[in-house]
Amino acid sequence: MLDKGMDKEKLFEKLFDYKKMDLDYASGKILGSMCTKPDPIALEAYKLFIETNLGDPGLFTGTALMEREVIGVLGELLHLFNPSGHIVTGGTEANLMAMAVAKKLFLENHEGVPEVILPESAHFSFKKITSMLSLKPVYVPLNDEYKTDVSVIESLINDNTMAIVAIAGTTELGLVDDIEKISEIAYKNNIYLHIDAAFGGFIIPFLEYDNEHALNFDFKCKGVSSITIDPHKMGLAPVPAGGIIFRYSEHLEKLAVETPYLTKDKQTTIVGTRSGAGTAAIWTLLNYYGKEGYKKAVTQAIKLTNYTYEKLLDMENINVTCKPELNIISFTSNIKSPKQVKQELYEYGWRISVSANPYAMRLVLMPHVKQEHIDNFLKDLNEILKRE
Amino acid sequence: MLDKGMDKEKLFEKLFDYKKMDLDYASGKILGSMCTKPDPIALEAYKLFIETNLGDPGLFTGTALMEREVIGVLGELLHLFNPSGHIVTGGTEANLMAMAVAKKLFLENHEGVPEVILPESAHFSFKKITSMLSLKPVYVPLNDEYKTDVSVIESLINDNTMAIVAIAGTTELGLVDDIEKISEIAYKNNIYLHIDAAFGGFIIPFLEYDNEHALNFDFKCKGVSSITIDPHKMGLAPVPAGGIIFRYSEHLEKLAVETPYLTKDKQTTIVGTRSGAGTAAIWTLLNYYGKEGYKKAVTQAIKLTNYTYEKLLDMENINVTCKPELNIISFTSNIKSPKQVKQELYEYGWRISVSANPYAMRLVLMPHVKQEHIDNFLKDLNEILKRE
Repeated sequence: MLDKGMDKEKLFEKLFDYKKMDLDYASGKILGSMCTKPDPIALEAYKLFIETNLGDPGLFTGTALMEREVIGVLGELLHLFNPSGHIVTGGTEANLMAMAVAKKLFLENHEGVPEVILPESAHFSFKKITSMLSLKPVYVPLNDEYKTDVSVIESLINDNTMAIVAIAGTTELGLVDDIEKISEIAYKNNIYLHIDAAFGGFIIPFLEYDNEHALNFDFKCKGVSSITIDPHKMGLAPVPAGGIIFRYSEHLEKLAVETPYLTKDKQTTIVGTRSGAGTAAIWTLLNYYGKEGYKKAVTQAIKLTNYTYEKLLDMENINVTCKPELNIISFTSNIKSPKQVKQELYEYGWRISVSANPYAMRLVLMPHVKQEHIDNFLKDLNEILKRE
Repeated sequence: MLDKGMDKEKLFEKLFDYKKMDLDYASGKILGSMCTKPDPIALEAYKLFIETNLGDPGLFTGTALMEREVIGVLGELLHLFNPSGHIVTGGTEANLMAMAVAKKLFLENHEGVPEVILPESAHFSFKKITSMLSLKPVYVPLNDEYKTDVSVIESLINDNTMAIVAIAGTTELGLVDDIEKISEIAYKNNIYLHIDAAFGGFIIPFLEYDNEHALNFDFKCKGVSSITIDPHKMGLAPVPAGGIIFRYSEHLEKLAVETPYLTKDKQTTIVGTRSGAGTAAIWTLLNYYGKEGYKKAVTQAIKLTNYTYEKLLDMENINVTCKPELNIISFTSNIKSPKQVKQELYEYGWRISVSANPYAMRLVLMPHVKQEHIDNFLKDLNEILKRE
C-alpha cells in the first residue's frame, strides 16, 4: 500500500490503461457471454440508487418497495400471483437459495444424504452447491436432442431424493427441457422441483412458439416450486441482478435468519449487505420496456440467431450441433478442433466460447451483437478454416 | 408487467418518488449501519467499469489485473506476502468461502459432522453458513469484556473440530478478540482458524495502540488461515465489495470448479457472474488514499467515537456497555428499553440499531456521521429520556 496516495489525474490515467485492456460489449467482439451492454436508462437508475443496501431495508424503504414490485412483475411473467423472492447477486445465489430450501424441507423428515436429480447440462453452479451443501448429485443423461432424458428420471427417484432440477435455457446450447413432463413426475412423487431459467426466463415468455406446450416452463406447471430468472442476462440489467422466485412464501421463510441489529428482523437472502442499484435498474427496465420492449429485444436476438444458423449451415466443413431454441448456437468444424479455432479467432479479436458437452464452439447472440459483427466474424472464421 | 413501457420522464418522476422514501448517508441520520457514503472518486471508477464481469476474466483482463493488485495490497495490509483471494459480494460470501474450504479440508480426513467453534458474538452470516453447510456450531461464551472467552476454547476442541472463528471488530460492539492467543491454540492443535475482520480489517491497521499485541489480529499470527476484510465497510468502497484472503493458494484452490465455456478454466468464488466495478472502486481508493488517507478517515471516526462516548458517560440515566475499541458504541438507559428509545428516535428521523447480546442501543460512527449530527442526536436522545 502506498504511504501517500497518488494524485487524481495520474490515477485516472492508470485507470484508463486498465480500461483499455478490457473488451467492451459494444465492440461486438464478445460472442460467448450471457451478459450484455446494459441499457443507458438502466445505468441512470443504477447510479441514482448506488448507495442503497437492501440488506438493511428499513433505511431504504423506497428501494425495498421497488424490490417487492419487481418480484411481483417477475412472478406474473412466470404465471405466479403472490410470488415470494428476491433480487440477488445472480444465478448461483438464486440456485443456492433454492437448494438450501429444498435441503431444509428434506431434513425435516429424512436422515440420509440428500440427493438432487440434475441434468448433465446443469450449470456449474450446481457443482459448487452440491459440494458445499453435501448433496449427492444424481445426473440424468441427455437424450439425442441434448435435453434431459425424461424417461430416466423416475427410475432415479428414491427415499433420499431431495429435489429435481430442470433447465429452461441450458448454458451450453440454450435448450429448454421438457419441463411440463418433469413437473408431472415431481408433482406425482411430491418432490421439490427447481427450474434454472437464469438465461431463458427473460426470453421464453417473449417468444412465439407454434407449439403451446413449449412455453410451459414456469409456475403454470404445478410441480414447479422455484425458478431462477436473471435480470442481468436477457433482462438487460447491469450486474448484479439475479432473481429467485418461490411459489410458497413458507419456502423462502425457511432461509430466514434473525438480524437483531438491522432495521428488519429477518433476512432471507444468502448475501447480507446487497446493493439496491441492480433492483432499481431492473425496476426501471421492466417499466420502460414493458412486454413490447422485451419482445422486440428478444425477437431481434432470435432473428440474428436464425440468420447466423442459416449461414453456418451453408458453410463448408461446419456442423451445427442442433437447431437453436434460444439465442445460442453450437457448432464444430471438420478441420480444426474447437479449442484451436477459438484460439485463432482470439487473434482476430473475437471471444467465442467452447463447450465441454458437446465439445463444440458456442456463440451467444446477445443484444450487443449486430448483423455486421456476425458477417465479419463468419468471414474471419472462413479464413481460419481455410488456412493451414 | 405493462404491455407498453412508460415514457422516460414519467418513469424518472416515479424513480425520484422512491428515492425520496430512502434515507441517505449524507443526512447523518443513519447511525446504525456499517456501510457509508462512498467517496465520489470511488463512484467515478465504479461507473467506468460498470459493465465488467470478473466471472469471465478473459474478457476483462484490465479489471482482472486490478483484482490481483487489490488482493496483493490487502494481503500486505494484513502482513501476508503472496496472498490468494478475491473481491467478492461481501462478508457473507467471504465467510462462506472460508468455511467451505475448511469443510473440504476436514472431509479429506474425517467422516463425522464437522464442528465450528464460534464466539457468541459471531455475525449472523455464520448462522446461514452452518445451517447450509450442515456444520455443528459450538459457541464459545463471552467473558466479562464481551470477548471470546479464550480459556474455554481448548476444552471445546475434539476430533470433529473443523475450524475456529475469531472476530476482529464484532458487529454489535466493535470488539477485537484476543486473536494472538486463539491463533496459538489453533496452531498447536492444527485447526483451521478464520478471522472475520469484515469490519475491523480496514480500521485496526490504521489505529495507533499503546499495546503492540492489540494489533496482532492478522497473518502475523501464524495460526490464521484466512481473513474476511470488507472494502465496502470501513474501506469506504461502494457495495458490492467484500474481501477474502487465504494464506495458502491451495486452500482457495479447494473451491475451484471447472468452467469450460468461460475465458478462464476454473472459478474459485461462490458467485459466478460478478461485477468488477467494486474492484475498480477499491483499487482506486487504495491508490488515492494510501495509508495516510485511510489513517485520516479512521482517526476521525475514532475521534468522534471517543467524543460521543465521553458525552454518553456524562449523561444521566445512560449506561455505556464498554469502552469502544473501534467506532461502535453500545449503551442502555435506566428509563426506557432499547427498543422503545429506538422507536422514539425513529420519529425524530434517527436510525440507530439495537443489539441482542447485550440488549442495548448501538451506534456506528461511520465517516458520514459528523460531530454536528451527534450533537443533535444527543439532544434528541436527552429529550426522549426526559419525556413520559
